[in-house]
Amino acid sequence: MTKTFTEAALSRLATRALVGLGLDERDAADASRILVLGELMGLSTHGVGRIESYGERLDLGGIKARPDIRADKVAPAIAKVDGDNGVGPLVGMRSLEAAMTMARETGVGIIFARASNHFGPVAPYCLIAAEAGFASIIGSNATTTIAPTGGRDARLGNSPVGFCVPNPGGQPIILDMALSVVARAKIRNAAKKGEAIPPTWATDKDGGPTTDPQAALDGFLLPIGGHKGYGLALIVDLFAGLLSGAAFLTKVSSWSENPEAPQDLGHFFFVIDASRLGPPEWLAQRMREFAAIIHDTPPADPASPVLLPGEIELGRLERHRRDGIALDPALVAKLEALASRNSPAGP
Amino acid sequence: MTKTFTEAALSRLATRALVGLGLDERDAADASRILVLGELMGLSTHGVGRIESYGERLDLGGIKARPDIRADKVAPAIAKVDGDNGVGPLVGMRSLEAAMTMARETGVGIIFARASNHFGPVAPYCLIAAEAGFASIIGSNATTTIAPTGGRDARLGNSPVGFCVPNPGGQPIILDMALSVVARAKIRNAAKKGEAIPPTWATDKDGGPTTDPQAALDGFLLPIGGHKGYGLALIVDLFAGLLSGAAFLTKVSSWSENPEAPQDLGHFFFVIDASRLGPPEWLAQRMREFAAIIHDTPPADPASPVLLPGEIELGRLERHRRDGIALDPALVAKLEALASRNSPAGP
Repeated sequence: MTKTFTEAALSRLATRALVGLGLDERDAADASRILVLGELMGLSTHGVGRIESYGERLDLGGIKARPDIRADKVAPAIAKVDGDNGVGPLVGMRSLEAAMTMARETGVGIIFARASNHFGPVAPYCLIAAEAGFASIIGSNATTTIAPTGGRDARLGNSPVGFCVPNPGGQPIILDMALSVVARAKIRNAAKKGEAIPPTWATDKDGGPTTDPQAALDGFLLPIGGHKGYGLALIVDLFAGLLSGAAFLTKVSSWSENPEAPQDLGHFFFVIDASRLGPPEWLAQRMREFAAIIHDTPPADPASPVLLPGEIELGRLERHRRDGIALDPALVAKLEALASRNSPAGP
Repeated sequence: MTKTFTEAALSRLATRALVGLGLDERDAADASRILVLGELMGLSTHGVGRIESYGERLDLGGIKARPDIRADKVAPAIAKVDGDNGVGPLVGMRSLEAAMTMARETGVGIIFARASNHFGPVAPYCLIAAEAGFASIIGSNATTTIAPTGGRDARLGNSPVGFCVPNPGGQPIILDMALSVVARAKIRNAAKKGEAIPPTWATDKDGGPTTDPQAALDGFLLPIGGHKGYGLALIVDLFAGLLSGAAFLTKVSSWSENPEAPQDLGHFFFVIDASRLGPPEWLAQRMREFAAIIHDTPPADPASPVLLPGEIELGRLERHRRDGIALDPALVAKLEALASRNSPAGP
């Protein structure tokens, strides 16, 4: 039996679970916000289920429950954030807040964050920024799974990056993506079903093309567009890892292989105050025209209209906010168990 | 017989050609700088040959030779540039200069430029910014050639975008790319040779997959990574076109179909003063480590070592600066003819 949660109820449960893992109440609420928004947007691999995996590392001391996160302003529009090995979405939220504070002054705020961990899905940060009137570019580095073009060893993470433009009174446009053609999970599914995969998804362990999902799982994910996606993944790591002072490329410690070690992941948050560019009506009018041109594209398949990036996720968010969201009972039980650590009846 | 030019000699010829087309001497020198760097980097489709096509539009009044380019600072770190329909690389250079001036103050400078034209290759802007110590993200919109994912009409340009991180005392890393899998020229070549093309390059006119180059030329370019590249092309136009106040999507006038009409192209220039993040030795050391990790990747083909984005282009630039560059005599003759308009013996 699935249980249906309102956004508020899910936020309370997620917050209590993080408090059960040792986080301070306010920190837990802020970190939960990202994961709950991810869940409501249907990004369930990056939703509240992540609390369990973060919890394993919190319990091992691989992540600090009570970090001392500091922003060091190095220019009127730039700050470096030291995440002090806190939970990723908490470092992310503090970074986003600091970026927006600077952008209110100078029009732009840029944060380079280091000493962080997996910061959850990117789209919720973009959405929070958009609702406050900011355009954004946000990214993180990640454990290596992609080989550089022409190489046969993983040297780059399948780094997520998001872009967003706000839309006063309407839906923002949010692009949130990783740079591989497909996620490893899709190759695992093909292997389970014994199906061949397209040669564009991954290489074998020697960096050669393969359609065998098992060979692909022993090999490396291929980035979108060959050398172009390789270049983009590399740029994300240069901004998120190298410029931030975090670990980069193969220096990023693997979460799964060394759960007890700090990962020293890095993120970047660029936010731009769109209200400096023109009044809200000006921007809203242009966003309406832009969306109309895309939506009016004759579809290749008449049953599948052309969509804007993020439209599906924002539709799910709206629906889940209205109707509530049904969660897997096993997940709910795990979150309840973490939450109960904190109650008088807990251990 | 090809003629070999030093960088200085090529710059003089390109500048004189633009002066012949009516540009002021200083403006011509600045615009030439981008095209000459593009030529020396081997980006010959975006090199000094562009002066001829810019010239056709200058002669028709489609581009203004003496624009009044203005930067309107709307926040300490943001300015909007009105290009007044000037030659693109001139609007681009003025925009880049304004962005770097703001970034010296606040750490970051963002320009949104409108009323512009084709601004040449992106990599030279990135290189100029890097040599002054700035990381950059730079892009432009373009005439529509790409259909949105699931659509069968061109609604997006094959917009170029560049990313760069500076490297004090060494080579910066520059990624300069458009968002289609291949350029139309590559499909045209296949058509000439009567060869089939991979189904990932383009669609036919109904938005369906095709391996027939002629059907592809009647259809639309495919973006890298399907919906991911579609999303990226759309984001570039949101930043370059929509936020700048320029034309966007199908509102961009076609250079080839309406050469006499202003295109109202838009660009964005984000520059970040990397020296605010740490001393030059810190950055240089990290860039060395980063490059070493990528270069040390075991290659799939032992004869082809793994390269960084921009490495080939920066190698060509170095070689051409040392040895000079040989140009097609027909191109030289055309540039000389434009340059002679300006001399006492000219028309």
